[in-house]
Amino acid sequence: MASVEIVTIGTEILLGHLVDTNSAHVARVLADHGVDVYAKHSVGDNADRLAVMLTGALERADGAITTGGLGPTVDDLTKDAVARAVGKKLVLHEPSLRAIEERFRSFGRTMTENNRRQAYLPQGCIVLDNPHGTAPGFVALRDDGRFVACMPGVPREMKPMLEERLVPWLVPRFGLREAIYTKTLHTVGIGESDLDRRIEDLFRTLENPKIAVLAHGFRVDVKVMAKADSRERAEAMIAPVAAELRTRIGSGYYGDDETTLAGAIVRRLAERGLTLATAESCTGGAVADAIVGVAGASAAFRGAVVAYADDVKTGLLNVPELTLENTGAVSEETAVAMARGARQRLGADVVLATTGIAGPSGGTQEKPVGLVWFALAFGAGEIETRRLTFPGNRADIRERATVAALGLLWRRIERDVLAQTGVP
Amino acid sequence: MASVEIVTIGTEILLGHLVDTNSAHVARVLADHGVDVYAKHSVGDNADRLAVMLTGALERADGAITTGGLGPTVDDLTKDAVARAVGKKLVLHEPSLRAIEERFRSFGRTMTENNRRQAYLPQGCIVLDNPHGTAPGFVALRDDGRFVACMPGVPREMKPMLEERLVPWLVPRFGLREAIYTKTLHTVGIGESDLDRRIEDLFRTLENPKIAVLAHGFRVDVKVMAKADSRERAEAMIAPVAAELRTRIGSGYYGDDETTLAGAIVRRLAERGLTLATAESCTGGAVADAIVGVAGASAAFRGAVVAYADDVKTGLLNVPELTLENTGAVSEETAVAMARGARQRLGADVVLATTGIAGPSGGTQEKPVGLVWFALAFGAGEIETRRLTFPGNRADIRERATVAALGLLWRRIERDVLAQTGVP
Repeated sequence: MASVEIVTIGTEILLGHLVDTNSAHVARVLADHGVDVYAKHSVGDNADRLAVMLTGALERADGAITTGGLGPTVDDLTKDAVARAVGKKLVLHEPSLRAIEERFRSFGRTMTENNRRQAYLPQGCIVLDNPHGTAPGFVALRDDGRFVACMPGVPREMKPMLEERLVPWLVPRFGLREAIYTKTLHTVGIGESDLDRRIEDLFRTLENPKIAVLAHGFRVDVKVMAKADSRERAEAMIAPVAAELRTRIGSGYYGDDETTLAGAIVRRLAERGLTLATAESCTGGAVADAIVGVAGASAAFRGAVVAYADDVKTGLLNVPELTLENTGAVSEETAVAMARGARQRLGADVVLATTGIAGPSGGTQEKPVGLVWFALAFGAGEIETRRLTFPGNRADIRERATVAALGLLWRRIERDVLAQTGVP
Repeated sequence: MASVEIVTIGTEILLGHLVDTNSAHVARVLADHGVDVYAKHSVGDNADRLAVMLTGALERADGAITTGGLGPTVDDLTKDAVARAVGKKLVLHEPSLRAIEERFRSFGRTMTENNRRQAYLPQGCIVLDNPHGTAPGFVALRDDGRFVACMPGVPREMKPMLEERLVPWLVPRFGLREAIYTKTLHTVGIGESDLDRRIEDLFRTLENPKIAVLAHGFRVDVKVMAKADSRERAEAMIAPVAAELRTRIGSGYYGDDETTLAGAIVRRLAERGLTLATAESCTGGAVADAIVGVAGASAAFRGAVVAYADDVKTGLLNVPELTLENTGAVSEETAVAMARGARQRLGADVVLATTGIAGPSGGTQEKPVGLVWFALAFGAGEIETRRLTFPGNRADIRERATVAALGLLWRRIERDVLAQTGVP
């Protein structure tokens, strides 16, 4: 079994100004491919300290994988340290220079000497393309075969480089055999203890595959993990367990792995030929944003009115002034009027409205900060409402209200589907 | 100046199932007290690997500070490794034993042999009380004065132990006087290399305070870090450098430290008595969401129309059907018509419209995926437009377009302010 150490480079992370999420991601992906992570380290932008760290790592493990330290300002330090640790010189890598030049040309910007220096790499290294940024990654090789692989620190650039470039190089080289494969089942609107009760016996008895439960507020994930020598074998082991879990979870289950809650909603609406619109006050467009984040959202999503000021609620959503006066902007009546107005204005089959008090000010005894009213119009039928109160600060309340809104949407659509197909 | 290395113990963190936030906290607190953090490490619950790591740390730094590895199941491994690294034996620490016994009595629970083992500590160590849990922390001392300080991994237990127990022991021992204080200046719409050029001389010549540049896409931060013996002295050293930087950065500068871009926009609009609305297609409400995220947004924000479907663009924003037919939904003309329509419908002084192709499909040779048109109406004046193309996947494109939209808003409002005050 191959072993590596992960090194995160950057004074920002070392000093705690940035929390490092990269090393956790790299460790998870490597574990999935049967690579043993021996240790993780963080060092600042300091060539001497980095060289010491990498040299030590190559004594203990087969290789070191670094993230960060490849931006135009700190690039030199990192590559200098890596070159020392593997005993190679830095040389100009022509294809990388041309790629950087091309990138700057396409954006119509001028290249600086700093950008040019990014094309110097340790002699004999393997270049890892970076389609999402200017700095290429690389694998520098010591003569005894031990390696230092360097990737950028920006997660958007690092993650595809890891999975599409580095792992395909690593796996055949180290002949990795058994690995852990995971399937994640996503649920919404079921409490963690309720879920525990439904699956407790499986949780206790299963060993391979085994089960883990991970809560994220309204969303709770159930992970099924199988250790096997191929993805095919692992999937065959996982399939019956996942099927049993889906039955037990019922309409709270919305999809596997990469499926997002918004993605599940869009797919289900499109399957049923239904359209969606939102009318948002406290969530401020966040529900619409989540839906538009789904590729293919246009198949179901018509649009939204973010009615933050009261006279936008009356002017654009036809909320009666009297309703606002009598019951206030945060009330069941206003939420219903917003949903009704959006149904007319935006002509959608399904309409969700939100109005609440996100704080920090504006709360009262009767209507505390965190109170949110939801209204859901389904077809021409009666409008359903829901009152929820969320803890936390303004950001927490708005985020939870957004997930709750998506959860209400999903369970309403799904309940209808299950009723039609005769499932209770 | 004292230097330490931080070691996080635990397989969960090493394998990325938990993201480590402890080490960032410890590093920040230590930096505030003038302790130099040389490096950070994570190791699993493995005595041999931990002993190697700690021995290495004590070669490079004055001490090591660990978090985690003190629960009843893994306790032994950690203390065994620490004892080896400092060359001491583990002995029963009577006061700790009594404290643990007392704790179990007060909860009416039975103590196990594992719990009793928690009272064994390296000979001659200094015990760090844990009023929030069962496992005490401790500082083990090597004969040459180098140390390993161990704290629990639960943040609720670790944080008070660090600040109330460990720091008071550390500071007089190492006679720490100086600490590093930081101010962060935020910019938007200036490239990292452009910024580098403007401040390169300061970056190269300044030592205390010194400068660091950190890019987050369209937003680039400049950090000014001063080493001083008090916050007041540090602030006096930082102030002239920050003032010089703000002048050089110009209208791209939007605030310091905790200020967000949306927060700066809301504050500036409110100061000027201006209101804002958005008309969004590809950004799908994300610009409105960012604005509503600001506490007090109601002082300036009226609302938004998310016009995703074409007939919502015509119906709710009065975009002429002919414009959509002739130039398409993603065009300068449509963006301008959206801004004009939102200005009428939502009655705002400042209106920003977005329309683009977020992908993955829908791109053509002339209008590739990533193309976004922005239109900005300021008062009754002419509507300004901007065409930008963003790299990446759908999420990247939408996120960058949202930040770009906020950046355009900020720079437009700020340019007007600077013009009024006579600054070029």
